[in-house]
Amino acid sequence: METISENRCFDGTQGVHKHPSDACNCDMTFGLFLPQEAQFTKVPLLWYLSGLTCTHENAMTKAGAQVWAAEQGIGLIFPDTSPRGEDVANDDAYDLGKGAGFYVNATQDPWAPHFQMYDYIADELPALVAKNFSIDMDRQGITGHSMGGHGALTLAMTRPGQFQSVSAFAPICHPTNSDWGKKQLGAYLGEDTSNWAAHDSTLLMKDRGFDGPILIDTGTDDQFGDLLGTEHLAAAIAERRQNAQIRLQPGYDHSYFFVSTFIEDHVAFHAQALYE
Amino acid sequence: METISENRCFDGTQGVHKHPSDACNCDMTFGLFLPQEAQFTKVPLLWYLSGLTCTHENAMTKAGAQVWAAEQGIGLIFPDTSPRGEDVANDDAYDLGKGAGFYVNATQDPWAPHFQMYDYIADELPALVAKNFSIDMDRQGITGHSMGGHGALTLAMTRPGQFQSVSAFAPICHPTNSDWGKKQLGAYLGEDTSNWAAHDSTLLMKDRGFDGPILIDTGTDDQFGDLLGTEHLAAAIAERRQNAQIRLQPGYDHSYFFVSTFIEDHVAFHAQALYE
Repeated sequence: METISENRCFDGTQGVHKHPSDACNCDMTFGLFLPQEAQFTKVPLLWYLSGLTCTHENAMTKAGAQVWAAEQGIGLIFPDTSPRGEDVANDDAYDLGKGAGFYVNATQDPWAPHFQMYDYIADELPALVAKNFSIDMDRQGITGHSMGGHGALTLAMTRPGQFQSVSAFAPICHPTNSDWGKKQLGAYLGEDTSNWAAHDSTLLMKDRGFDGPILIDTGTDDQFGDLLGTEHLAAAIAERRQNAQIRLQPGYDHSYFFVSTFIEDHVAFHAQALYE
Repeated sequence: METISENRCFDGTQGVHKHPSDACNCDMTFGLFLPQEAQFTKVPLLWYLSGLTCTHENAMTKAGAQVWAAEQGIGLIFPDTSPRGEDVANDDAYDLGKGAGFYVNATQDPWAPHFQMYDYIADELPALVAKNFSIDMDRQGITGHSMGGHGALTLAMTRPGQFQSVSAFAPICHPTNSDWGKKQLGAYLGEDTSNWAAHDSTLLMKDRGFDGPILIDTGTDDQFGDLLGTEHLAAAIAERRQNAQIRLQPGYDHSYFFVSTFIEDHVAFHAQALYE
């Protein structure tokens, strides 16, 4: 692992680190904010999974999360959204290939050799972080924005016990039924839709739910609202009587201005679960 | 004036607006955050002048200022750092020409036809804002980062009564004596150094000071520390017995991670002065 940069930030450290990834078969870069407390003790960790077109950097510089993580004594990790490099397959569209890993393990060509983002986020990166940083891996929460909200919810439900809490900003809720999902799940996983169900929050909620609290914020003026399928996940949550809050925020859109407005609530929500 | 975008943010609105500028003889773009209170009453305004290479966008998306401005009921304006457009003179260096206006009125070719950033910030943009938005122009503070800190301090001292309070993050304090200054003041204002003094905070502090409070934060690990000349301004402030705080922040560098860490203090500092 190589440290690319470290900046002091809210009495802690915002680092950027690069490492060879076995899962993705390429070098991967991630951001890690460690609060001051990490100098003395292992701190809980909140995962932030980003949306389409993002790298590790967008949320790290634009979400305004560090101030609240420092206040709560929680670490923040910002993984990249896809494998990277010249020999990694790509597509001209913004929503397939690089920047659009969708947090799945691709089984189809040309994606399978590198696009193993589920394994990368669920297993490889946690092991790396546990080995190299002062993190208490028994206390992890996960959040994300848009495609990353989809990633957070599907990882939380398919890895019971790994995350104590999950939240999401404007998540893609029902990708098997959306143009943000059908194209990508088809490309990465093939046309047999039975393989898609493990990557659809609405279907996972119907099938198993989550053993912990869920917080979801989505703006009423989200310009991609029709692609998110919030209504399907909301119905599934209500039907299951899942411990969850779904908040439709009046006037907010899909931007980081929306995320930054509610990130304080999300960090506090995870802190409550992680310090229980 | 044309509104480029509006995003709901902390119950207020983050707007981006474009307008033809008489001072700069080109179209100029600025960001304006208005807190919720602006729907009902005129709100105080805090100017944020950005540093080298920045546009109106950097601080607007990376400084994390809106949360505190919303809390205090203050507007934030993020002007661009230079004139823009194909017919605007430029230089290959990052620190001259576009993105590097230095908040002066250029008298020299090829800069004079467009680089009138002092007049733009001091007169033209305030008049535009007063006319179009719910701002109380009798309550204005000004802050900035690096070159923008230089701009904030020099504007505050050369426009007595216009700003009630001034602060700065890692400001260029003594440009007539620094490689961040001599090159640009020479290019824009010519080689007669007597014309430079009105654009040097240290010289202005010796000459006149500021009738209000000053807050300056600079990191002890600022990678450009030698170019800032903080020691010269600090000495001038102490000699004048100016109402001021200069804080050397241990371990912090020149980045937005530094700015975002202390922006809460700066917004609160200005709010105290503006709501007096």
